[in-house]
Amino acid sequence: MIPLKQDLEEAYYRVRPYVHRTPVLTSSFLNTEIGAEVYLKCENFQKMGAFKMRGATNAILQLSNDQRRAGVVTHSSGNFGQAVALAARNLGVKAYIVMPSNAPTVKKDAVRGYGGIITETEPTLAAREAASEKIKNEIGASFLHPSNDINVILGNATATMELLEVQPELDLIFAPVGGGGLVAGTALAAHYFGMNCRTYGGEPFEADDAYRSLQSGFIERNSTTNTIADGLRTNLGTINFPIIKSFVQEIIRVEEGEIIAAMRWVWERMKLVVEPSSAVALAALNREKERFKNQKVGLLISGGNVDFSNLPF
Amino acid sequence: MIPLKQDLEEAYYRVRPYVHRTPVLTSSFLNTEIGAEVYLKCENFQKMGAFKMRGATNAILQLSNDQRRAGVVTHSSGNFGQAVALAARNLGVKAYIVMPSNAPTVKKDAVRGYGGIITETEPTLAAREAASEKIKNEIGASFLHPSNDINVILGNATATMELLEVQPELDLIFAPVGGGGLVAGTALAAHYFGMNCRTYGGEPFEADDAYRSLQSGFIERNSTTNTIADGLRTNLGTINFPIIKSFVQEIIRVEEGEIIAAMRWVWERMKLVVEPSSAVALAALNREKERFKNQKVGLLISGGNVDFSNLPF
Repeated sequence: MIPLKQDLEEAYYRVRPYVHRTPVLTSSFLNTEIGAEVYLKCENFQKMGAFKMRGATNAILQLSNDQRRAGVVTHSSGNFGQAVALAARNLGVKAYIVMPSNAPTVKKDAVRGYGGIITETEPTLAAREAASEKIKNEIGASFLHPSNDINVILGNATATMELLEVQPELDLIFAPVGGGGLVAGTALAAHYFGMNCRTYGGEPFEADDAYRSLQSGFIERNSTTNTIADGLRTNLGTINFPIIKSFVQEIIRVEEGEIIAAMRWVWERMKLVVEPSSAVALAALNREKERFKNQKVGLLISGGNVDFSNLPF
Repeated sequence: MIPLKQDLEEAYYRVRPYVHRTPVLTSSFLNTEIGAEVYLKCENFQKMGAFKMRGATNAILQLSNDQRRAGVVTHSSGNFGQAVALAARNLGVKAYIVMPSNAPTVKKDAVRGYGGIITETEPTLAAREAASEKIKNEIGASFLHPSNDINVILGNATATMELLEVQPELDLIFAPVGGGGLVAGTALAAHYFGMNCRTYGGEPFEADDAYRSLQSGFIERNSTTNTIADGLRTNLGTINFPIIKSFVQEIIRVEEGEIIAAMRWVWERMKLVVEPSSAVALAALNREKERFKNQKVGLLISGGNVDFSNLPF
């Protein structure tokens, strides 16, 4: 079930009043370093600091009035929890966010700051899923998955649609790959709105389920998730994988050292605070830059939410 | 000797081919925090990472062909050395940069990367001045002062001219105050191109020569310069002080803790890497925000060159 062009267009107009149209930045430094024309779509400037705001908003807007009255629930220790909390508040919907008890205080504070109602659980996936299920069953809240939900994917696609409005002739776009929701949306938008625009994914070697899934043709599980790119530790799902298989050209894996170096490079040289997941996409482009010489390259800067008490430099 | 409106206009067209037209960013977070509409002129995205590129470029462009052939010289361990090196290279001019021997390697590398010819001296002002004087006399290079030079001031003014093109109705503009070259240029541009736009300076208590100079009416010296805002440790000069006296409304002083908190706030919430000097202007606005409620406020983000091996958080 591949969405149609019209589905993307509808999502675009649906979320537009609720999200920032983020800037597209360039850097002569970066262009020289990569040997290509690189256009950064800066979703680190998005509301709550990440592209996740788009998918969460679109998903909630697709609920019926009855569903909205009952609220939404998700489990997340990262950006999606914040995105659901803020998107829900903007739409007058209650948001129940299940978080592991050991999540950093700063993340709990952010969710609470956006009006999310937090349920703390043991820090295991089973406990988080059970708690979400309970809220879903007892309160009737709609469960929102951070990446394996077609409305989330369509919302995510709107970032690339905006990028292509500014730079219609991109040859390719790089996006980081975690659960697959961003790269799937990116690839759909590039397919429908680009002019022969290919989509590449960047993924840590330490969480390379998507790379291996594209190789085998089946959804593979992460064997390790020991990466600094905390947003990319999750697995592909049954809804985004068919889209990725159809529309993503290739996934390029990167080492942890490359991620940290790319992150520092963007902070130091481009003066942009980007999170490690965003640096993964740049590191992948940089690793294979010889292949992309003189091309027009889009780069999805997925977010800028970083734990300042634990910087890698 | 106050420059005319036409002098600013000429500087604007003179430097335009050589500098970035930097973006003006806003943040709903920041507007809520301050209670005003704040517009950040992001000179951290300027070439070499700071507004200094504008003044250096304008000053070199005002030299005669003979002067350009002989090169330019300055002494600086900070942004102005890099700016002169890069601006000179862009114009095919040799740049001699006198730096203290104990300047961080990263800063020497940056100057060298832009093609500057470095002379190292003992880390005293006297030694730096003597070395510059020697290069001036022996090679015939023109000395460029980082802040007390009318062409540098006019070049700096172009940042505010661009800001006022985007936001013509600003009620006031905040700029950091070090040697006085930025705030003088800002105040001139606000005077000639604003609609009743006032200029405020932000200055550390630890280097408050400008505050005290405005009080006394005479150029006062810094008694301490023990501030994290390394760009603001220098003193006002005879060329910028009359401009500041005529056109700067007030200088607001801030504590070191306020500077660090403002810097971290911009990094964490706005995802922008700004240097401590830029944070001084925001800290000053924040300290007195009750007085600026619901006004339209411009904020000069002077630069983003930060020593990553020595972050205050």
